Amino acid sequence: MMVYLNGQFLAAAEATISALDRGFLYGDGLFETVRVSRGRAFLAAEHLKRLRSGAAFLGIEPIPTDAELAMVWTELIRLNGVEEGVLRVTVSRGPGPRGYSPRGAGPATLLVTVHPLAVERGARPCWRVVTSTKVRGTGPRILCRFKTCNRLPQVLARAEAEAAGADEALILDERGCVVEGSSANVFWVMDGVLWSPGPEQGALDGVTRRWVMGHCRSRGWAVREGTAPVEEVRRAEGMFLTLSTLGVVEVREWDGRSLPVWPGVAELQGAFERALAEV
Amino acid sequence: MMVYLNGQFLAAAEATISALDRGFLYGDGLFETVRVSRGRAFLAAEHLKRLRSGAAFLGIEPIPTDAELAMVWTELIRLNGVEEGVLRVTVSRGPGPRGYSPRGAGPATLLVTVHPLAVERGARPCWRVVTSTKVRGTGPRILCRFKTCNRLPQVLARAEAEAAGADEALILDERGCVVEGSSANVFWVMDGVLWSPGPEQGALDGVTRRWVMGHCRSRGWAVREGTAPVEEVRRAEGMFLTLSTLGVVEVREWDGRSLPVWPGVAELQGAFERALAEV
Repeated sequence: MMVYLNGQFLAAAEATISALDRGFLYGDGLFETVRVSRGRAFLAAEHLKRLRSGAAFLGIEPIPTDAELAMVWTELIRLNGVEEGVLRVTVSRGPGPRGYSPRGAGPATLLVTVHPLAVERGARPCWRVVTSTKVRGTGPRILCRFKTCNRLPQVLARAEAEAAGADEALILDERGCVVEGSSANVFWVMDGVLWSPGPEQGALDGVTRRWVMGHCRSRGWAVREGTAPVEEVRRAEGMFLTLSTLGVVEVREWDGRSLPVWPGVAELQGAFERALAEV
Repeated sequence: MMVYLNGQFLAAAEATISALDRGFLYGDGLFETVRVSRGRAFLAAEHLKRLRSGAAFLGIEPIPTDAELAMVWTELIRLNGVEEGVLRVTVSRGPGPRGYSPRGAGPATLLVTVHPLAVERGARPCWRVVTSTKVRGTGPRILCRFKTCNRLPQVLARAEAEAAGADEALILDERGCVVEGSSANVFWVMDGVLWSPGPEQGALDGVTRRWVMGHCRSRGWAVREGTAPVEEVRRAEGMFLTLSTLGVVEVREWDGRSLPVWPGVAELQGAFERALAEV
């Protein structure tokens, strides 16, 4: 695998960063995971907008322009011969002195990697999920607007899902309301209305979540941002997850109980596939 | 500066890790900050106990034995000629595949660094603090037991303190109760009783905090673990912070308002200095 690191295309085995990089010491960084379809980045502008807004908020700089980043990943996708895959763009504050203060750190470290994805055209992804028992809450609300490199809650929840033989874990907040999956936003249908927790509820401001909400609204479907206690959500008329790699994933089973099939999921999955084909 | 990385003593400029290290990608790691006094590590056993317990919880391995780690830092302290300083021991899950799943990652990356500290014997550290307006809440309770490499809330709060010309920022939880400082645990005195938020309240399970609580109890002082709304804490009869580098730091001013001097602080500072001298 070839990767891009701080201005150079390198073999992954040769891509090294300073052990004093604040990304390593404090998780002081941001990333984006961008779906690659037919060798092209999907929803790239939206991902870069979130990355840039996070970098500005955290004071991480410099970040190359969108055009420069697109040139980098276009070349990287070509070098790796990836048609269907996932780009990961990571920026950290770079090397810096000990201590939380960001003073004197930088310049930013920039890593871009691309990973092939085994996709089956027309497949309707469908997952079994469990509720994380270890992780409650997702951290300060202000950081939910960005995809930060502080991902231990997600690592823990994902390990819990795997230990339970499930595909994904749902994380609740401290009041017991549903927030998100470890790697996905969540939607459910209640009395015909779509609900999805967003950054105000402690969930990541997901790019695919926004895309799906826009699509639902353009179809005239009622979509609301909010959450509800897990006992209430268990009575949903359907549930699905959104994530940049797979798009829309139906939830068929949650904590061992089957969920009803909501017909809108197949339509959203079809719309996502069509959008990928047009990228 | 010489550092220790994965079995080798190296110049800091030569210490590099894989850009695919999960510490860098996800903050998937732990660290400890240990005070060095007269060239020796203070409360080392307690720090290593927390590190080891976190590594076991997260499934990060292998971690060298305490004796091996002590040999490493003894040599590192000698190589750098540090008498008064701070050791930082960092372990991450090591390089791994993309995605939150910890499967297939490792072996752990181990970095040890030592940083000189300008200390003045007999000084009574005293700080001005502000309340962080950006950061509310400190993340999942289960992670408060460990010092993880997910430290963006602390980086943000510290930057806020610096922007306000203060030494430290206090972080509140989502209900508006006082939790901790960005780099320190907090204690206050109310009706003659010492209060300090701990991991149950969302604060780090601080090694120096535990040491100070033990000292208070041995003196017969009432100490309770808990928190209170910020408006209530503002009426405290005194406030101080505990952190491994400086020990006990009096809070003289909080959000521009002076705080009363509680006489016990000077006694705790003296006890900490004596303990450092005996290490």
